Amino acid sequence: MSVSEDEITEWFERRSKLAAADFPIGIGDDMAQIQLGEDVSVLVTTDMLLEDVHFDLQTATLKQVGYKAMAVSLSDCAAMATIPVAAVVSVALSKGFGEKELEQLHSGITLAGDKFDCALVGGDITSWSDKNPLAISVAMLSRTAGNKPIRRSGAKAGDSICVTGSLGGAICGKHLEFEPRVKEAIKIAQMVTLNAMIDISDGLSSDLNRICQASRVGAMIEAEQIPISDQARKSEEPLSSALHDGEDFELLFTLSEKECKRLLKQWEGPMPITQIGTVTETGKMQIRTPDGQVGELEDKGYNHLR
Amino acid sequence: MSVSEDEITEWFERRSKLAAADFPIGIGDDMAQIQLGEDVSVLVTTDMLLEDVHFDLQTATLKQVGYKAMAVSLSDCAAMATIPVAAVVSVALSKGFGEKELEQLHSGITLAGDKFDCALVGGDITSWSDKNPLAISVAMLSRTAGNKPIRRSGAKAGDSICVTGSLGGAICGKHLEFEPRVKEAIKIAQMVTLNAMIDISDGLSSDLNRICQASRVGAMIEAEQIPISDQARKSEEPLSSALHDGEDFELLFTLSEKECKRLLKQWEGPMPITQIGTVTETGKMQIRTPDGQVGELEDKGYNHLR
Repeated sequence: MSVSEDEITEWFERRSKLAAADFPIGIGDDMAQIQLGEDVSVLVTTDMLLEDVHFDLQTATLKQVGYKAMAVSLSDCAAMATIPVAAVVSVALSKGFGEKELEQLHSGITLAGDKFDCALVGGDITSWSDKNPLAISVAMLSRTAGNKPIRRSGAKAGDSICVTGSLGGAICGKHLEFEPRVKEAIKIAQMVTLNAMIDISDGLSSDLNRICQASRVGAMIEAEQIPISDQARKSEEPLSSALHDGEDFELLFTLSEKECKRLLKQWEGPMPITQIGTVTETGKMQIRTPDGQVGELEDKGYNHLR
Repeated sequence: MSVSEDEITEWFERRSKLAAADFPIGIGDDMAQIQLGEDVSVLVTTDMLLEDVHFDLQTATLKQVGYKAMAVSLSDCAAMATIPVAAVVSVALSKGFGEKELEQLHSGITLAGDKFDCALVGGDITSWSDKNPLAISVAMLSRTAGNKPIRRSGAKAGDSICVTGSLGGAICGKHLEFEPRVKEAIKIAQMVTLNAMIDISDGLSSDLNRICQASRVGAMIEAEQIPISDQARKSEEPLSSALHDGEDFELLFTLSEKECKRLLKQWEGPMPITQIGTVTETGKMQIRTPDGQVGELEDKGYNHLR
């Protein structure tokens, strides 16, 4: 396909006619928000995982696949700093699938859901031809915590840019067993005022670009500040791996310099939070290397339609 | 697979630990209900459509596929007599798919959604290998109308059993362009007290069996009362087609004899409502032919896992 995932999202967004009163957050963020009553809203997201795209059954167990399918949506709930409530799961099975396999898939789904009190409330299971691969789609609902849902579009020039955890090399295993940052996101959002947030699903450069585009800002990233994962350090290009590898599922967020200082001072871990740069007015993503040289930071993250 | 769709649903239901206060309706009905506040709840359903199982791209257009994907979930909203609110759609595309194809799929999705003010609020699109077929999964949210959501489990011995429209032969075209009975369901539920309702997705005999199982009752169907569609009349066994063909997406419901009389008297159409039998205490599904003979009515509807 010649268009990118973000171009498709924009395409859908342009065609969408959502009334802001009923849908405070529409297409184009990690979740959409639906207003149900004066003070009650619900958020919703969906993600589909496909065999040989998002997982390989030669190396991943079905339990891991079930876990990942839920964890990806849980990470969307985290990206908005909202509380997961319930999920529905639809599955396309190969006919060779039996009760044992179903049990394994289910155990992964509930392992992830139970961690965050997110109930499995329904599903749809269909088998198709033996030669067709496994597909699993999760739709998840969340509710607001004390804070407003954090959007991608609120970053302001001068904001500090932070990430949780460490980045790169998730493909070596973390992508199947990562811990969605649900509790951390809510804790952070209740400690300080966040201006923008996203989860890093397609790589830091891709997801930072989404914040920049949605907020109409630029970014200056300090290369030496980036928390490179142990896994990425084993690769030939550790920095490139941390900048562009997909499926870290860490949080990327911006907040005022003052709030950032307060957060970094008060944050008790154990998961680290690192400031990696600053939001700029340039509209461009840039990166500064330790020698002081500034270059363009290209969006080279994972594109699901490439 | 050796187990049936209903056995899988029961399997999930047994493993489910949903608190009734938070989830008034859990796994095993057309939709689950999630309580969000004292007087505010939301319902959710999901359905996945697969190429060569639910549609054939040799005969169906992508617009029809998009329409059907939404209409199937809209029909679930109708089955509970609830009001559709919003949907998210995830799609697995072949890499050959371009903007033109996406436009067609989208036009079908919004055609169905717009009919019932059901907004498309998000989605996930991924392409996979060229040889893999199209899969599309919809998750839909609805809210309660003036009435409580109508469940499968409330049928009482002595109830009249009714259906909307006419049955059988949907595979010849209706399954791609059917009208979900959303407005009719809410209208009926507000006119009379319904005890149980379901939409006929897998055939009258299968879906009636679901009501009987959930309500722990039996049923006596009058063969000559069944509204056989024009399409089914062209088949070799019109009655069998009306009893067992899938994808009619008509409503099947039970209500007291008195309420049924009132409904049939006051109902103004244009869609017909027909009483086709009575709920019994036998626990068995039976059918009476015009000559007065009573036989067993077997559940021979469509099983997605056969």
